[in-house]
Amino acid sequence: MQVYLDNNATTMVDPLVVEAMMPFFGELYGNPNSLHKFGTKAHPAISKAIDQVYTSINASDNDDIVFTSCATESNNWVLQSVYFDHVVNGDKNHIVTTEVEHPSILSTCKFLEEQGVKVTYLPVNEQGVVEAHTVRSFITDKTALVSIMWASNETGMINPIKEIGEICKEKGVLFHSDGVQAVGKIPVDMQSLNVDFMSMSAHKFHGPKGIGALYIKDSQALSPMMHGGEHMGGRRSGTLNVPYIIGMGKAMEIATTDMEAKISKIRAQRDRLEDAILELSDTFVVGDRDNRTPNTILISIKGVEGEGMLWDLNNGQIGASTGSACASADLEANTVMLAIGADNELAHTGIRLSLSRFTTDTEIDYTISHFKDAVGRLRNISSSFAKQKPTEGGEVQECELHHH
Amino acid sequence: MQVYLDNNATTMVDPLVVEAMMPFFGELYGNPNSLHKFGTKAHPAISKAIDQVYTSINASDNDDIVFTSCATESNNWVLQSVYFDHVVNGDKNHIVTTEVEHPSILSTCKFLEEQGVKVTYLPVNEQGVVEAHTVRSFITDKTALVSIMWASNETGMINPIKEIGEICKEKGVLFHSDGVQAVGKIPVDMQSLNVDFMSMSAHKFHGPKGIGALYIKDSQALSPMMHGGEHMGGRRSGTLNVPYIIGMGKAMEIATTDMEAKISKIRAQRDRLEDAILELSDTFVVGDRDNRTPNTILISIKGVEGEGMLWDLNNGQIGASTGSACASADLEANTVMLAIGADNELAHTGIRLSLSRFTTDTEIDYTISHFKDAVGRLRNISSSFAKQKPTEGGEVQECELHHH
Repeated sequence: MQVYLDNNATTMVDPLVVEAMMPFFGELYGNPNSLHKFGTKAHPAISKAIDQVYTSINASDNDDIVFTSCATESNNWVLQSVYFDHVVNGDKNHIVTTEVEHPSILSTCKFLEEQGVKVTYLPVNEQGVVEAHTVRSFITDKTALVSIMWASNETGMINPIKEIGEICKEKGVLFHSDGVQAVGKIPVDMQSLNVDFMSMSAHKFHGPKGIGALYIKDSQALSPMMHGGEHMGGRRSGTLNVPYIIGMGKAMEIATTDMEAKISKIRAQRDRLEDAILELSDTFVVGDRDNRTPNTILISIKGVEGEGMLWDLNNGQIGASTGSACASADLEANTVMLAIGADNELAHTGIRLSLSRFTTDTEIDYTISHFKDAVGRLRNISSSFAKQKPTEGGEVQECELHHH
Repeated sequence: MQVYLDNNATTMVDPLVVEAMMPFFGELYGNPNSLHKFGTKAHPAISKAIDQVYTSINASDNDDIVFTSCATESNNWVLQSVYFDHVVNGDKNHIVTTEVEHPSILSTCKFLEEQGVKVTYLPVNEQGVVEAHTVRSFITDKTALVSIMWASNETGMINPIKEIGEICKEKGVLFHSDGVQAVGKIPVDMQSLNVDFMSMSAHKFHGPKGIGALYIKDSQALSPMMHGGEHMGGRRSGTLNVPYIIGMGKAMEIATTDMEAKISKIRAQRDRLEDAILELSDTFVVGDRDNRTPNTILISIKGVEGEGMLWDLNNGQIGASTGSACASADLEANTVMLAIGADNELAHTGIRLSLSRFTTDTEIDYTISHFKDAVGRLRNISSSFAKQKPTEGGEVQECELHHH
């Protein structure tokens, strides 16, 4: 049996999504910016996909949705363009974010710091959550932007986006949220919130890798990061990735249709898995279930290194993670666990299990059984384990894919 | 019969490319940055695709190839990062480019001018070609970058990349070439040239839309534009678009295998079409065939507006263009034709026909017949045509695709 429990890293493309995309790899290959029928034939499907995205997050007709190549692009775009619009061509110089953002936010902030921007990295509480009053206390007259993730990729913990949005509105500060781990997993209702910009990524909810979007409230100004032709109203240039746009729309529609039922099923499976693991001694899960995305567990097993656990699970055909795939090439302590106050030893023991709607009860049974055995095996060799390197079959690969 | 002659805008995805991509929409959906088997299973195919790209352009093992979401991204990346690396953090302040670059270069240059960069837009000669001695005469001690397209999307004319590269090397100036219309159409041999950066786009050679690459000579330094995780050696963050990377590799391999035979076939068809059109009175093709990509004709028909011709061809199920799809939403004069010295009236009469290896002789016969009839029809109504708006069936669509 194979069990894929790394759905916060990426998901299987839903076969219905593949089916929706296929015609656009075939006969309907025109460039939608062309003026002839080959191009315009794609327009109805693109319009439908745009409508699907609007509907799925309850965006208003006044809002804008712009497709990008991924949420990393959406995140870079907001931060870099706010820099040009409000720092270079304005009188602001400050961004507020958190210590536990995705690398695409943290690295862009580091880059902007090199350009002279001041960045405040807010701490999270022991639940891994950014508290709204903390955000309030760090906003100044010079703050251009607050950027805080909706839900954590690593812990699944959900930040108080509504309250933070209200604070930003009151203070007259732009608010961006990286919604990658929220959209498709929990209800997201843009009209009930004050979020100026929100990043999305299709491959986190069974769409293809290589397409994302940025939600822009009230279609407000934001300089493009990709300059060029007048694609997407001049907001993001580059020939439209028609198949993936169709695929993203379809994936969002599926994810948000009967969402409560989907959530209930995943949550029940997740809770059963979590309960079973917590029966083991000295295990510890980050964050309350009620305030967590329904598919995620970040668990710490005393005396068991995360990489060792990953290796054992991998041998059992179970795909898991020690944290973000985007930062997983190096065998460092889990930064989120450090941020919530775990000591360095404990921060090396984090294992993330993330389910999807394709996860089956049988897979959960198998995982519980294998996981318990693995903990036994690894604790047995715990004193010597730290010196051992992962080997063939459970190889810890370098992420860089290079020629030769 | 349908005839697609807009292959400089985009191409049909080769069914073999679709076939190569399909497994990665299916079972092989892991994130290649993940440490488990679901992720690492994709590595051999990605490595193969990278090798295919290297081989196709004869890049050296010391060079770097970085996948991007499109050539618009590659172009933006080079220009914006040269700005940060050599203007903000250096003592240069000047970029040399041409009047006839793709909008993704021209718009980025306009943006950089707003940041204080000086940009020289070189003219082209009556052939639509940038002359090497012109490039030489505008390089100064402050020049950070020369960016000149390899071949024109509109005319197909090929610039003297080898000579320009030698001048840039001699002057110690970085040289970028937008190779979008060259790669897959004509032999491209990076080891025989001094090109520091070269942009590519898969959908111009029967790969998918939404994937491109940047070639980087000697893996030299260039700050990332997309900050984030350590994907692609830290050069371009964002989860790898595995299916499209596989597809781009395959498409390049196909395009460059037996390339001379492919070129001969397309060139013969193109020349036959061109000769037939030139039999009509007062017609005029831009640029010598010998120095043009083998698939492209930019033709001007006196007294016939390009949009009218496009409309008539569209009614005949023939897809053509008045120029770049990326700039075609507005009914303006063809800027390349203006740049080569055509008067404003003539610059409104440009029609671009661009073939592919899937173009058949029967399609060429049909196009010649329809084209000649169309010129007759349109010249008959020429005096009144300027007042007439394109109508249903030949509708000139706005390119902006918006919600509702």
